[in-house]
Parts: sequence; C-alpha cells; structure tokens
Amino acid sequence: MTERTPTEPLSPLGADSPADIYRRFLADLFGVMAYGELSAFERMSSDARFSPTLHDRTVLGALAVREYEHFERVSAHLQELGLDPEEAMRPFQPSVDAFHDRTKPADWFESLMKFYVTDAISDDFYQAVAARLDPETASLVLGLQEAEPTGGVLEARLQQALADDPRLASRLALWGRRLVGEALTQAQRVLLERAVLGGLLQGTVQGIYEDEVKMLFAALTRSHSRRMNRLGLTA
Amino acid sequence: MTERTPTEPLSPLGADSPADIYRRFLADLFGVMAYGELSAFERMSSDARFSPTLHDRTVLGALAVREYEHFERVSAHLQELGLDPEEAMRPFQPSVDAFHDRTKPADWFESLMKFYVTDAISDDFYQAVAARLDPETASLVLGLQEAEPTGGVLEARLQQALADDPRLASRLALWGRRLVGEALTQAQRVLLERAVLGGLLQGTVQGIYEDEVKMLFAALTRSHSRRMNRLGLTA
Repeated sequence: MTERTPTEPLSPLGADSPADIYRRFLADLFGVMAYGELSAFERMSSDARFSPTLHDRTVLGALAVREYEHFERVSAHLQELGLDPEEAMRPFQPSVDAFHDRTKPADWFESLMKFYVTDAISDDFYQAVAARLDPETASLVLGLQEAEPTGGVLEARLQQALADDPRLASRLALWGRRLVGEALTQAQRVLLERAVLGGLLQGTVQGIYEDEVKMLFAALTRSHSRRMNRLGLTA
Repeated sequence: MTERTPTEPLSPLGADSPADIYRRFLADLFGVMAYGELSAFERMSSDARFSPTLHDRTVLGALAVREYEHFERVSAHLQELGLDPEEAMRPFQPSVDAFHDRTKPADWFESLMKFYVTDAISDDFYQAVAARLDPETASLVLGLQEAEPTGGVLEARLQQALADDPRLASRLALWGRRLVGEALTQAQRVLLERAVLGGLLQGTVQGIYEDEVKMLFAALTRSHSRRMNRLGLTA
C-alpha cells in the first residue's frame, strides 16, 4: 500500500477529481437509500396484511406508503443530480435482498420488530453520514428523517404487544439480536464492495477509515441496545 | 313474499326510514370500497417485488400507493358521515379475502393481469352504482376514478408483455376468465349477504332487483370481454 499523508484525499478509483468522487459517492449514498426504502415499502406493506387488527393494517400501510414517498424524493434528488435512480440502486440489490431473505419474520410481531430495528439503524447511519455531507445534501437526508415519526409509532405498538403478552419478550430479544447482526453484516458488505463509499471519509488514510467504520458500527450497536432496553428486552 | 307496488321502497331491515337505509347503504358501499382498496394496496405492493425490472417495481409501487390514498379518502368520507371505517369494512373481509386467496397469481404477469382485470371491473361497478347516488356522493365516487389512470398503465404494460412473449396469451386468457368468474362470484356473495346493499335499488320490487343485478353483471362481463379483446385475448 502506498504511503499517504493524513490530509491527502483517499482516491480509490484512480485519478478522478474530488468532485467526481463526491458525485459518485452521492450516487451510492442515495442509491442505497432509495433501494432500501423501495424494499422496505414492499416488505412492510405485504407484512401489514398479517396484522392482528384492521387498525394495525392501516397504520402499517401508512408507514409503508411513507417509505415509498421517501423513495420518490430520493429518486427525484438523484435525477436532479443528473443520475439515473435505477442505475444508482442496482449495485445494492444483492445486499439489501440478502438482508431481507435472511430475516424473514415468522409472524406479525417479528415483522413489526424488524421494521423498528432496521428503520432506527438506518436513521442512525444516515445521521452519522449527514455530518460529512455538504449542507444542501445533509439537509435533504436529515429532512427525510424529521418527516418520519415511524420509529415512535412502531415502538409504542411493540410496547403494547409486549405488555399484552410478556412471553413475546424472549423471542423478540433473540430476533432483535439476529436483525442487528444481519443489518451490520450487510452494511459492512456494502462498504467493502463499494469502494466509492470510502468517499464518506475523504481526507483520511486507509487505517483511519477502518477505525472510523469500526467506531460507527460500535455506535450503531450501542444505540440499538438502548432501544432494546427501552422495550425491556435484553440486547 | 308480500306484494309490493313498484314504487314502494324496498325495506329489508324493517321499519327504518329511507334516510337510515341510505346511510347504511353508504356505510356498506364505502366499506367494501375501502377494504377492496386496502387489500389491493397490500397485494399489489407485495407482488411488485417480483417485477422483472426495477422500473416495473417502481411503477407498480406507485399504483399501489395510489390505492392506499384512495383507501384514505374513502375512510375520511366514512368518518365525515359519522361512521367508523373499520366497522364499515369488517363485513367485507371474508369475501374480499376469499377472492384474493382463490386468485393467487403464479407469476408477475398473472399478478399484473389480476390488477388490470379487477381494477377495471370495480371501476365499472362503481360507475354503475354512482348513477344511483346523491350528487355529492356520486362525485366522490367518480372523482376517485378520474384520479386513477391505473388501467391505462397496466394495459400498456400487458400489451408490451404479450408482444415480447406471445406464448403468454393463452395462459393469460385462461387466467382472465378465472379472475372475472371469481370476481363476479364474490360480488354476488356480497350482494346476497348484505341486504342493505339492496338499498342500491330502492324503489324497486324484489323481482326487478334481481333482474337489475343480472343486467349489471352481464354489462360487467361484456366490458371485461372488450378489454380482453383489446389485449388480443379470447375472453
């Protein structure tokens, strides 16, 4: 590996200008967000069908629709940047699909938990990323989150379910651990495969990059544990 | 059966006032619409996942979201009438669910066809019903349809699929016949079970009611055949 000074931009794709790299980084960032939201919409709306009550179905349906609206906003932003949303999403299909295939909920409560856990982890992740973006892009990313009270709705519903049937706790605790494990595994896969996402940490050397990723993942895990504790579950 | 003059209102629920009957008729009409739209949203968005291309997924996703928005508008209208949307939907769960359970698409093209066929039949049905409603309610019902170019999008996509693979034609023709058969069977079940929907044809006697239902069903079948012909399929 060539020596770099800590201030030299990391340029994994060769001699591209920092602007080119940043643009490709945005394509990847919004590509993975868009595909994540499109997939969440499809899974959430189909799982909604198994809700115990009509009320739950309509509430989950509304949350799913919000995911689709976010997908549309992110797609529109890609187009404003002159990028093709489908092309931007494509590289992330295998890892996002793998995550969903490996975390098929056994029932409605597991499905509720899945959306609660993954929604919160992606929010934390995008919040961490936003700190490294230009102000305009950062405000778009953060704006999507502010418009999204999904977490609160899901947390309240999970708390109610756990109060109604305390036996759910051990199963959901186990399920939560599996979800966070799979989510971080797939996130790591994405970061490894898409060198350009290294643009996230431009101006750092390889070693520091790896340390930062480790720190980010540790922070995501800690936030996850705090959420599980709030539900009275062992993380 | 007691004799009625043709102008005497049909009052299957006893001595209720015509206003009460009409109100209960609206609860049923919007209840079945709302539940149909909520179910279509869930099925369509989950089937979208199996689309051959990302573009198809996003197009079907957008159509599914429109179904959810219609569901929300119809629910809001029920609430304006002082009615509980969940209570209004509940009686129609068994027949709508039975329809979907009996028409599980084997692949994405069958799923596309299913939404094309059922969307068009419900549009025709609601259009026929609208002619018998007070002007305000009629304009709500017709307004939902005008806002909905779903049929055109689905028809164009089916035409393209049939052009790409002409072998699809015989399978989709068979599937179309099964869909229309199941749709009309379940619609008949609803009309039989929910006497209040007879309010649809207030001011008629039992015999005329049955004739009108037969005529309506014949008209729905004819329109279906015309649509199949437009796709080059034998109805």
